[in-house]
Amino acid sequence: MSEFELIDLIRRMSRGRPDVRLGIGDDASLLYVPPGQELVVSTDTLVEGVHFRVGTKPDDLGWKALAVNLSDLAAMGAVPGWALLALTLPHADSAFVRGFMRGFSTLARQHEVALVGGDTTRGPLAVTITVIGFAPPKRSLLRSGALVGHDLYVSGTLGDAAAALRLDRHKRGRVAARAALRARLDRPEPRVALGLALRDVASAAIDISDGLAADLGHVLRASGVGAHVEAALLPASEALLEAVPDTRARTDLQLTGGDDYELGFTAAPRHAAALATLSRRLHLPLTRIGTIESRRGLRIVDASGRRVALKRAGYEHFKA
Amino acid sequence: MSEFELIDLIRRMSRGRPDVRLGIGDDASLLYVPPGQELVVSTDTLVEGVHFRVGTKPDDLGWKALAVNLSDLAAMGAVPGWALLALTLPHADSAFVRGFMRGFSTLARQHEVALVGGDTTRGPLAVTITVIGFAPPKRSLLRSGALVGHDLYVSGTLGDAAAALRLDRHKRGRVAARAALRARLDRPEPRVALGLALRDVASAAIDISDGLAADLGHVLRASGVGAHVEAALLPASEALLEAVPDTRARTDLQLTGGDDYELGFTAAPRHAAALATLSRRLHLPLTRIGTIESRRGLRIVDASGRRVALKRAGYEHFKA
Repeated sequence: MSEFELIDLIRRMSRGRPDVRLGIGDDASLLYVPPGQELVVSTDTLVEGVHFRVGTKPDDLGWKALAVNLSDLAAMGAVPGWALLALTLPHADSAFVRGFMRGFSTLARQHEVALVGGDTTRGPLAVTITVIGFAPPKRSLLRSGALVGHDLYVSGTLGDAAAALRLDRHKRGRVAARAALRARLDRPEPRVALGLALRDVASAAIDISDGLAADLGHVLRASGVGAHVEAALLPASEALLEAVPDTRARTDLQLTGGDDYELGFTAAPRHAAALATLSRRLHLPLTRIGTIESRRGLRIVDASGRRVALKRAGYEHFKA
Repeated sequence: MSEFELIDLIRRMSRGRPDVRLGIGDDASLLYVPPGQELVVSTDTLVEGVHFRVGTKPDDLGWKALAVNLSDLAAMGAVPGWALLALTLPHADSAFVRGFMRGFSTLARQHEVALVGGDTTRGPLAVTITVIGFAPPKRSLLRSGALVGHDLYVSGTLGDAAAALRLDRHKRGRVAARAALRARLDRPEPRVALGLALRDVASAAIDISDGLAADLGHVLRASGVGAHVEAALLPASEALLEAVPDTRARTDLQLTGGDDYELGFTAAPRHAAALATLSRRLHLPLTRIGTIESRRGLRIVDASGRRVALKRAGYEHFKA
């Protein structure tokens, strides 16, 4: 299969949007921006052996590569619009590309994202996606808005993806629980609807990709505040409770495991009822896990009030 | 050096623009689009050992990674605005990143491009840049606009970069000529000003990155036309004439070598004088090399009128 046949396959498997004036096939794409909207843009790379296991199903990779990017838009409270796909492949493997595009397009369709351009090159397997979305001016959710006295929330459950990776390595746990955790690792759901709804409620937001502790640290530093977090409040899935019964090990996964793609956000206590309603509407747990304080730093305590020490802050590239 | 120190280094070495509402440092960037403009977006990946030699100077790589992307915007007749940088590195090498950003920023400054986001990851050395520019609605230059009877032009000179690669491999040619060719390989000049000026003149345009023959083929297919090209008219630099005196070998480099980053474009014959004036104003050769014809296909003839046979159409990934 030639490079141009690959590009043609990718084009045939992607959807359009009326605001795409010119899509894949020229030197660049032409896009029509809704008047009065700011652009919200982000880019993320996934490298084989670093961000995903050798042998990851191409369908899952296509889904996840888009999901991790949409998660960044969700954390800003933006509506997704367009994506560009830079795909580096060792071989022109049409079955791989077909699978990749199936996963990519399934998620793209759910969020009405049009693939508007890209590049296919030969090299070690890696994917870089750039996403472009929209938000009304000054309505985006920033990391820097957390206020003292506000509650700290997370969506969904934490630690599932990290547990999947660990259990997979050791082949431990029941099959059903492992499958549930694997689904969370391979097919994260970007919290786009939540991000949009939080525009009216949250004072700050971030997507939890490197681990809760590390990502909360970004919010606290950007906002010039600190936080008190109760480890016992961290939301855990049934599958995680079953697969990792030890509280300490489980808490560590939840705080530092990474790959959750949930949203962490802060909101004034008066919004508690609105958030409970939103949680029901979205069928998504929104759990209060702590409070923003003026004293800098992140303080995490266990059920008996003792400080939880972290083995590492979270996932970071280039760490030994 | 940690991932966050790297990001901080990249941020410090990049410039802003007033239309960047929020730059590097949150989940996504917020950008203000000039009213009434279409967005023009493109993405290109460079992989070590495929698009650039192992041991390429980081300064040159930073320049070139941005240049090849700006060349795509130039071919559309767009004004560059913003770039996102996804950088995959084997190690957190701060000297490398500093060099890369020096090259990147030198070119970014020339074209007033702001770096507005990105991702740094660990893995085999590769760079993906996404560029976003602007053009008034329906004023962009497309591949599909070539008309029968129009003249076919290229900017600058062709074959220099391909010759640099070949001579470098064989260590042939005089030092001065080799240095001139190397500069064309390592520091291509995106023809942004030319692209903007061509909005009023050209009927179609493309950036010549894969080799003239292959890229012209794209224009001809998209426009549903053919072309007659005279090989003797192909513009050659002094350095190329000196380094590759054999006409046939030189013509082959010019037609299929790739990495030129010049613009190929078509224009009505009545624009010949305007193009001569433009060439003088930009200090850039604009050379008529042939004519658009109704009969499909690309016909290249040498000085004696014989058809030139190509060894290969041009650079293509995944070809054996």
